[in-house]
Amino acid sequence: MSSPATQQPSPQLFFQTINAHQRTEALKSAIELEIFTAIGEGNTTAPEIAKRSAASERGTRILCDFLCIMGFLGKQDNHYSLTPDSAVFLDKRSPAYLGGATEFLLSPMLTDGVKSLTEAVRKGGTAMSDEGTVAPENPIWVKFAQGMAPMMIMPAQAIAALVDPEGNRKLKILDIAAGHGVFGIAFARNNPQAEVVALDWPRVLDVAKENASKSGVADRYNTIEGSAFEVDLGTGYDIVLLTNFLHHFDPPTNETLLRKVHAALSDGGQAVTLEFVPNDDRISPPETAGFSLMMLSGTPAGDAYTFSELERMFTNAGFTSSVIHPLPPGFEQVVISKK
Amino acid sequence: MSSPATQQPSPQLFFQTINAHQRTEALKSAIELEIFTAIGEGNTTAPEIAKRSAASERGTRILCDFLCIMGFLGKQDNHYSLTPDSAVFLDKRSPAYLGGATEFLLSPMLTDGVKSLTEAVRKGGTAMSDEGTVAPENPIWVKFAQGMAPMMIMPAQAIAALVDPEGNRKLKILDIAAGHGVFGIAFARNNPQAEVVALDWPRVLDVAKENASKSGVADRYNTIEGSAFEVDLGTGYDIVLLTNFLHHFDPPTNETLLRKVHAALSDGGQAVTLEFVPNDDRISPPETAGFSLMMLSGTPAGDAYTFSELERMFTNAGFTSSVIHPLPPGFEQVVISKK
Repeated sequence: MSSPATQQPSPQLFFQTINAHQRTEALKSAIELEIFTAIGEGNTTAPEIAKRSAASERGTRILCDFLCIMGFLGKQDNHYSLTPDSAVFLDKRSPAYLGGATEFLLSPMLTDGVKSLTEAVRKGGTAMSDEGTVAPENPIWVKFAQGMAPMMIMPAQAIAALVDPEGNRKLKILDIAAGHGVFGIAFARNNPQAEVVALDWPRVLDVAKENASKSGVADRYNTIEGSAFEVDLGTGYDIVLLTNFLHHFDPPTNETLLRKVHAALSDGGQAVTLEFVPNDDRISPPETAGFSLMMLSGTPAGDAYTFSELERMFTNAGFTSSVIHPLPPGFEQVVISKK
Repeated sequence: MSSPATQQPSPQLFFQTINAHQRTEALKSAIELEIFTAIGEGNTTAPEIAKRSAASERGTRILCDFLCIMGFLGKQDNHYSLTPDSAVFLDKRSPAYLGGATEFLLSPMLTDGVKSLTEAVRKGGTAMSDEGTVAPENPIWVKFAQGMAPMMIMPAQAIAALVDPEGNRKLKILDIAAGHGVFGIAFARNNPQAEVVALDWPRVLDVAKENASKSGVADRYNTIEGSAFEVDLGTGYDIVLLTNFLHHFDPPTNETLLRKVHAALSDGGQAVTLEFVPNDDRISPPETAGFSLMMLSGTPAGDAYTFSELERMFTNAGFTSSVIHPLPPGFEQVVISKK
């Protein structure tokens, strides 16, 4: 190894980062053109893939090479192949297909926020409008519900198994900002005695109810329409799910909600929170800590909270204890807080 | 190490890539807000940097944390520090400051091309217009000339030292599509007997001439206004420079130009080409091979050519031999072709 003093300065990281937007667009194009599905179906050369994707051979060759460079494809003697991860997540025929998530993750509502990042840094919150993505009935959450379900099935099953390992006692569950409904549905599937109340905007609940029907739990699935901050949550819940919700708001707003959640829980009940929880340094783990930037660009005052910050919010709202659990292989963690 | 069979599929690469555009925007914002300069000047905490950059403390903290995650800053006890590369390339007070390059690299002309990548893949060339970035007198090349000079000074010096190591014989040099002029100017600075003729659009040549004056070589610096494909190049050149030019065009177009170059060279003269030259697999080295995508999205028929493709173009145009030289630490290589 050369000593630091002899290392030449390199603009490599600058270049890679300035060009990083190309990676996003290349993956988006590959999904739109169904390149991964084409290869999964047995089209392995640029001419074959081009034909299947109704694209030019030259454009297909350059895009496929770029997908190799990024690690989404392999290439051997001008034959392209899916990596194991691409076969699972990017071939449309796979049950774990994630391509639909781009409809939410790259929706103009989110990318416009990122594009006005400089203004957001100046202002200290989203530059899009006063409320950004958390505006009432923002249609982005319908896209979220439609696109993000496949990505959440694995973590949802893991959370249900963690919180309700026996899966055989009567449970009443409130799923706040249910979205696609996948978290509450996982509890219902895991436990035939679990009843779920899903709360969200009406158009979002249509997606959750459809997913509940498909999963065969519609008879144990009820809904409350509206904002968790405004509606009556009801009482007597054993579990309240707060999945990817608290990061949209500042701590005082969260504490207001958590007091409502506390009141809605039965004695011995628990709040189950799924969040991007960075370490106290706020820069690790990278993907987890980096989520903060999305909240700066998209919300007035949201953040990726450390465990001690979350713990403080729950304590201030009356909860007696909070415990954090990892949830590999994702970037999020589960915090279980007892009433 | 676990065996491949036991590895869980991971959506990590999908997520990282879909979110890669955030990295571009975060670096762009940091440059716009002069975060690196602020830290270089001794402002190391979020409140101090925020004050210097006229930004909010919260936004500054989240952006600086993201810059740490990307590797542009260090962080210790809430004090941020520049990495060695950031100090050299991103502090405005550094002579090697590259921040201005974003004006070109992230100009709407280039990013719009990337944003319509799907259409470019379908069509087999830029979806922006018939000619994309290579349209006559496209103002993008003025931005290029203004922004990219600092990035090219090191490679330009390396090329001059490689091609004219003695630096003491009479030389007549033609710099085709001179842009900022940095390549021709490096030859003139390296050799007091070198005379340079720079060719480009008039508004671009204004930038080159200014750089020649600043470098003290204006008395040995002449210009030809127009397109290299159309104007009379003159004759009797010892060296013709083709830096970052051939990748914009298809091989027949390049061969047409190279025949003109061949005729303009003296006997024993040489064409000196700077290019992104991928290996024959077209997927390595990554940054070099990845340049192809820029040419697909921005030009009708350009590409990152392999050495054998370049060699063939030069041979077809009448050159007797071509030799390739690496040019570390950059991503490009130099091809020297003899008449």
